[in-house]
Amino acid sequence: MLEVSLLGTGGMMPLPYRWLTSLMVRYNGSNILIDCGEGTQVAMKEKGWSPKPIDVICFTHYHADHISGLPGLLLTIGNSDRTEPVVMIGPKGLIKVVSALRMITPGLPFELSLIEIQEDFQTFDLGEYRIEAFKAYHSVPCYGYNIVVNRMPKFDAERAKAQDIPLKLWNPLQKGNTVEFEGKTYTPDMVLGPERKGLKVTYCTDSRPTNIIVDNAKDADLFICEGMYGDPEKFDQARDKKHMTMYEAASMAKDAKVKELWLTHYSPSMAYPENYKKEVRNIFENTVISKDGQTVDLMFSEE
Amino acid sequence: MLEVSLLGTGGMMPLPYRWLTSLMVRYNGSNILIDCGEGTQVAMKEKGWSPKPIDVICFTHYHADHISGLPGLLLTIGNSDRTEPVVMIGPKGLIKVVSALRMITPGLPFELSLIEIQEDFQTFDLGEYRIEAFKAYHSVPCYGYNIVVNRMPKFDAERAKAQDIPLKLWNPLQKGNTVEFEGKTYTPDMVLGPERKGLKVTYCTDSRPTNIIVDNAKDADLFICEGMYGDPEKFDQARDKKHMTMYEAASMAKDAKVKELWLTHYSPSMAYPENYKKEVRNIFENTVISKDGQTVDLMFSEE
Repeated sequence: MLEVSLLGTGGMMPLPYRWLTSLMVRYNGSNILIDCGEGTQVAMKEKGWSPKPIDVICFTHYHADHISGLPGLLLTIGNSDRTEPVVMIGPKGLIKVVSALRMITPGLPFELSLIEIQEDFQTFDLGEYRIEAFKAYHSVPCYGYNIVVNRMPKFDAERAKAQDIPLKLWNPLQKGNTVEFEGKTYTPDMVLGPERKGLKVTYCTDSRPTNIIVDNAKDADLFICEGMYGDPEKFDQARDKKHMTMYEAASMAKDAKVKELWLTHYSPSMAYPENYKKEVRNIFENTVISKDGQTVDLMFSEE
Repeated sequence: MLEVSLLGTGGMMPLPYRWLTSLMVRYNGSNILIDCGEGTQVAMKEKGWSPKPIDVICFTHYHADHISGLPGLLLTIGNSDRTEPVVMIGPKGLIKVVSALRMITPGLPFELSLIEIQEDFQTFDLGEYRIEAFKAYHSVPCYGYNIVVNRMPKFDAERAKAQDIPLKLWNPLQKGNTVEFEGKTYTPDMVLGPERKGLKVTYCTDSRPTNIIVDNAKDADLFICEGMYGDPEKFDQARDKKHMTMYEAASMAKDAKVKELWLTHYSPSMAYPENYKKEVRNIFENTVISKDGQTVDLMFSEE
């Protein structure tokens, strides 16, 4: 199970009752945060969560509304007596930006491990899941992220029997080990059933729509995407500021054949994002006009 | 009239329903902000105020809970199309800290005028009011502030007549001009009545109690002071971390003979600051256990 929570849905500035866009993903005890604008730690607290177990913080880019909550978050994590290191992933400049922000949070009791993304597409293997960073198209270098959990194929006893694999080898093979036994080599794929679908969440803000985003969101269980404006008259503004409209996000969701789209990063000028629901759903039916704290438990499909 | 509003009352971290300690003072169209932790711009918005007219931002010190809201505030002021410069006053290091935080707020449409406090006590004359910075005693360089509005004495027609001052000179003298007329020198004090009491607000956090604070808060109309802990058992913690208890703040208010004390900068561990009201008022009766948004209009006394 992958627990996904959109802590806030605002863009540009935090508002009363609308926190800045930030995503928290929890999987098997590991907590991943994407973006951390002003107030993110309060939004987290409102969900009843502590920031202490956050292992990884990813940044899409370094505009204030996506990172200004970092110093306060680090201070609060420090006050919770965390000692394990925190990994941070972000576009080039991460080390410089975080060092600058650290000026107001001296003396943290834990280490930071800062990883700057070097490629247009880059994978970070974090044990039970992986994070894929892909280039977005904003006014400054900006990345979207996939969080991908692979699912091991099932052990297939019938296949093992059919190949006369000795019973005592079943367990190590099932665990992924290759075994040499009586002059023969046995590999895990010999006892495993067909590939099983894992889980994928794609997160992208701030960006113009691109084919790269569509490719990366392909077949995602959940696509969380900027929908800065709903008013069609704001299209020029979205384009000029390298943002996107709700309709553009919905078109990408359709092209990428995702299961569900959550819109977020609403302009402060848009008081009622819900007003555009019908028009957006005409493009992509499974669209959610997200609200702060929108949460889902994504489950592996049965098979 | 001096409008004083304590936007938040929290210390260390913003909490749901408790913003970080920050003071907004409004006088004759000029807005002064003291401290700007994470969420201050939201607290301001909850009061119905725009950050656009803020002329001066003072910082007590540069721990994250007192300045981490600055990048977001600057971005929001920028988005409001302000072009007039914003003055900032703070302990030494201001230029370095603000430059660092500016990394995530590129391209503001207004200038920043950064003034580093050089002395243990320093006065900044801002036209209709003055700001006095005085040294506090924290774990890092830290200042308290007085905001002082002087009140011009009244024009005294009887005195002017008694001195045979020509009628045509009354107006320029009343406006504070010295006038040469028919070989004689006339000065404003010749037509003015007795000194009149102005208004003074004193703000101090984070600090141990000191005589300097008492001297500076002397006779203040309002003394806003840290009351980090109410539980007497937390005294050692307050002392070790260079903070103060509610009782220490009340003792200073008593010694300084202030009109009213507002406590603030509560520890996140203190869920109900109100619980200590009775004991604190035993030391200084006119104590307010402030809540977020606590506001008063200070009026000149009639005479």
